[in-house]
Amino acid sequence: VAKEFPGWTLAEIAAQVNGVLHGDPGVRVSKPVPAGSADPLGFTFAGNDEFLAKAAVQGIGVVLAKTLPPAYLGNVIVVENPRSAFGALAAQVEAAIPLQTGVHPSAVIDPTATMHETASIGPNAVIGRNAIIEANVIVGPLCSIGPDCHIGEGCKLRARATLVRNVVLGQNCIVHSGAVLGADGFGFEWDGQRHVKIPQLGRVIIGDDCEIGANTCIDRGALEDTVIGKGTKIDNLCQIGHNVKIGENCIIAGTVGIGGSAILGNRVTAGAAVGISDHAEIADEVTLGGRSGVVGKVKESGVYAGFPLQKYKDALRTLSAMSQVPDLIRRVRKLEQKAADEE
Amino acid sequence: VAKEFPGWTLAEIAAQVNGVLHGDPGVRVSKPVPAGSADPLGFTFAGNDEFLAKAAVQGIGVVLAKTLPPAYLGNVIVVENPRSAFGALAAQVEAAIPLQTGVHPSAVIDPTATMHETASIGPNAVIGRNAIIEANVIVGPLCSIGPDCHIGEGCKLRARATLVRNVVLGQNCIVHSGAVLGADGFGFEWDGQRHVKIPQLGRVIIGDDCEIGANTCIDRGALEDTVIGKGTKIDNLCQIGHNVKIGENCIIAGTVGIGGSAILGNRVTAGAAVGISDHAEIADEVTLGGRSGVVGKVKESGVYAGFPLQKYKDALRTLSAMSQVPDLIRRVRKLEQKAADEE
Amino acid sequence: VAKEFPGWTLAEIAAQVNGVLHGDPGVRVSKPVPAGSADPLGFTFAGNDEFLAKAAVQGIGVVLAKTLPPAYLGNVIVVENPRSAFGALAAQVEAAIPLQTGVHPSAVIDPTATMHETASIGPNAVIGRNAIIEANVIVGPLCSIGPDCHIGEGCKLRARATLVRNVVLGQNCIVHSGAVLGADGFGFEWDGQRHVKIPQLGRVIIGDDCEIGANTCIDRGALEDTVIGKGTKIDNLCQIGHNVKIGENCIIAGTVGIGGSAILGNRVTAGAAVGISDHAEIADEVTLGGRSGVVGKVKESGVYAGFPLQKYKDALRTLSAMSQVPDLIRRVRKLEQKAADEE
Repeated sequence: VAKEFPGWTLAEIAAQVNGVLHGDPGVRVSKPVPAGSADPLGFTFAGNDEFLAKAAVQGIGVVLAKTLPPAYLGNVIVVENPRSAFGALAAQVEAAIPLQTGVHPSAVIDPTATMHETASIGPNAVIGRNAIIEANVIVGPLCSIGPDCHIGEGCKLRARATLVRNVVLGQNCIVHSGAVLGADGFGFEWDGQRHVKIPQLGRVIIGDDCEIGANTCIDRGALEDTVIGKGTKIDNLCQIGHNVKIGENCIIAGTVGIGGSAILGNRVTAGAAVGISDHAEIADEVTLGGRSGVVGKVKESGVYAGFPLQKYKDALRTLSAMSQVPDLIRRVRKLEQKAADEE
Repeated sequence: VAKEFPGWTLAEIAAQVNGVLHGDPGVRVSKPVPAGSADPLGFTFAGNDEFLAKAAVQGIGVVLAKTLPPAYLGNVIVVENPRSAFGALAAQVEAAIPLQTGVHPSAVIDPTATMHETASIGPNAVIGRNAIIEANVIVGPLCSIGPDCHIGEGCKLRARATLVRNVVLGQNCIVHSGAVLGADGFGFEWDGQRHVKIPQLGRVIIGDDCEIGANTCIDRGALEDTVIGKGTKIDNLCQIGHNVKIGENCIIAGTVGIGGSAILGNRVTAGAAVGISDHAEIADEVTLGGRSGVVGKVKESGVYAGFPLQKYKDALRTLSAMSQVPDLIRRVRKLEQKAADEE
Repeated sequence: VAKEFPGWTLAEIAAQVNGVLHGDPGVRVSKPVPAGSADPLGFTFAGNDEFLAKAAVQGIGVVLAKTLPPAYLGNVIVVENPRSAFGALAAQVEAAIPLQTGVHPSAVIDPTATMHETASIGPNAVIGRNAIIEANVIVGPLCSIGPDCHIGEGCKLRARATLVRNVVLGQNCIVHSGAVLGADGFGFEWDGQRHVKIPQLGRVIIGDDCEIGANTCIDRGALEDTVIGKGTKIDNLCQIGHNVKIGENCIIAGTVGIGGSAILGNRVTAGAAVGISDHAEIADEVTLGGRSGVVGKVKESGVYAGFPLQKYKDALRTLSAMSQVPDLIRRVRKLEQKAADEE
């Protein structure tokens, strides 16, 4: 049964987030709410001045902010990073009301699988041969965990997440619904008459604290492994090919495609719909603007965009010049005409 | 058990679609067929002259058409919009043979869920805590309906559709297989050492008569809700980020990506593979050509394409000018050479 | 129970792959391993000189290679196509350890479905009305096989693959996890007030020896069928619209989108993220570079790229010229200034 979350007093919150309370330390809040809410049990945050004006509504329990809203009489906790302070609090609210507990009787668990007694398996989930499931793991409804998978402590697999085979998850990962980890890489060899399938035999290795988006695919390696470094967050509907190596703390936005054997360093950020070709190599701390395309190597950290890829400023200049090409053609024709007339 | 659909006489069809019958009013048809079929029980349609010639085959039960095919002796019903007349008839054939009825004993339904007695739940589907399922809803096999979801009257969820949590569907929506509604939005805050997850707590709200394509993802809002207006149709493999607001009667084609907090007006049409960036705003009655990319605001209705986005005609001109750039470089060099020679 | 695979002697392998053994014919190997392994039971391959140097490690059971590694004392089998020889051997290892056998008691099988006694149905899979499942088919856990589907001999459906309705698979196809075949095509008709759904009534027909990637969608035809020719391989997260016809032995890389009614010939190769518009037509033996976009017809075989599409060499030239446009604008302005000064 879902229990109510008791929340915290403002004094407790100020201590927890290392902030300074301006207001009533005894007030108690328990609900994360959007800016604009006037819920007396609510807590919200303001990351910038625009949100500060929206959030500082009379009646709201407390606002987490960088500075004091002018002429505001409500409770405020001033903190260096209001958004991450808010996130840390909201995470505790969520954790307090678990989606499920225990092993549901409809789940099908192979007798060779090993499960920690604190793990929870949802309705109609299927756990395969030799799978290992560590402490405090939550496997959602209708998940499929295939043979020889290993799920580290504290991982959460949402409804219908799928680990096909030979997938290793570190600790505290989140895998969203419909994600498919460990499907065969796309490997064929034309023999003159047909495309012969090259069996894909590697693993998928995911580091600690990773998040994998809904319906994202991460293929198993051909012979070596596909590897995602710890702390890397991947959004929905991304395609990660076989043998890809992604470093630590990367951010991969929605619908990004990464071709086989590509290598990304640490703290790489790829904007939405970025394409990274097979065997590309990207250095640490590279940021790729939305829709950009990478072929070959990006050796220096920095911000890039466009296809072909350029330094960000150059890419913007190129993009904005595109629409002038039809006019440019007309103007060059005119210059040529003039030159011809002069001869 | 599947029963045969009895069909209609041509007189009945003419009355129903408000058309004029040329032929035998007593003939009975019951099967939607493609143009070219000669099935005497079949009905087909011709939206234009090309299809008219293909469809007016001797033997076919009846052709729905805008005009009479020249020198054709078979049955024809002349109607203003043959395609939508055909669609309305074919929908009745489909509805007459339901895919499933009742609650399958293998479905797992949380005791706190509320279900109308006319709702149908497929094999191995899972219905979570506090879910509400209204009259005549069909939940397909292996669907996952998470906690606090509300499914409006007459909705159809195909096999393996997933509502993760806090998703509200209006009436008569269709959610196709593999679609994931209500997964966490992609929100993190870098704290200097790691990407801290910002809990995603909003809902997904879908209006009446919407259709959501296979394997499409619509994320729940961060704090506010992600909202899709009534009558909007979204194709397969689209990514809709957190807090997006889409208006009414929009058409979103396959593999479109819409970034977080983007706002689309009513009757917006986005062609295949369009990308719309975070926080973009698009006015009512805007049409975006396939592959176009939107950043910022599109304030006036009209047809646009390209990346960067231009008015459609300008975009075509820009696109077709691209291939002339290498030649243009050569020509400018020649002009410069000439100018230099003259000095 | 999983049994150990006994492997082969090198003499047996040389005979099987039609190669020439340099080494000990009695040595026995059983494990496909990556280049660099020193496993005495392992076999690996070298497709080129770089891999040859990596693979020819002392201790490895045997290396399949095109030429003898210089100064290498280990076992080598020289063969014309080492990668496809390796693939054929590795496939036998995989086949020897089946993922599942028999019909799992948790599977839900409609009484009207027809199943061959050698077919295997995984835990919690659902088989619908009038489905036909031929010999040696393996349906993975949590798969959904809808009404009127027909699965040919030897097909393998991985966990959570979905055939919605009216899908016909030839022999020996592989459908990966999360793939959705047979969802409704995207067809609506605006009647002045709303988008009327046009029922989608065609089938999906997949030829022999096809492979369909994870989370890929292939929609059923509107009235005619969507057809994929034999031997065609489709990667992850692709979108194939209604009525599309794809020829034989095509290769469709990840995240490709193919619009409704497009027609592709035989041996077409589409690189990652290619977009092919509605009603496009592509001749046999056309290769499309990654990210290219096809509108209209490609009548001649050859290699193409870009958007708009050009012959490959021209496309590369156009792409690399893009970044020079800002400079070109400056140079043309200068020439115009000069011309104006002269007047």
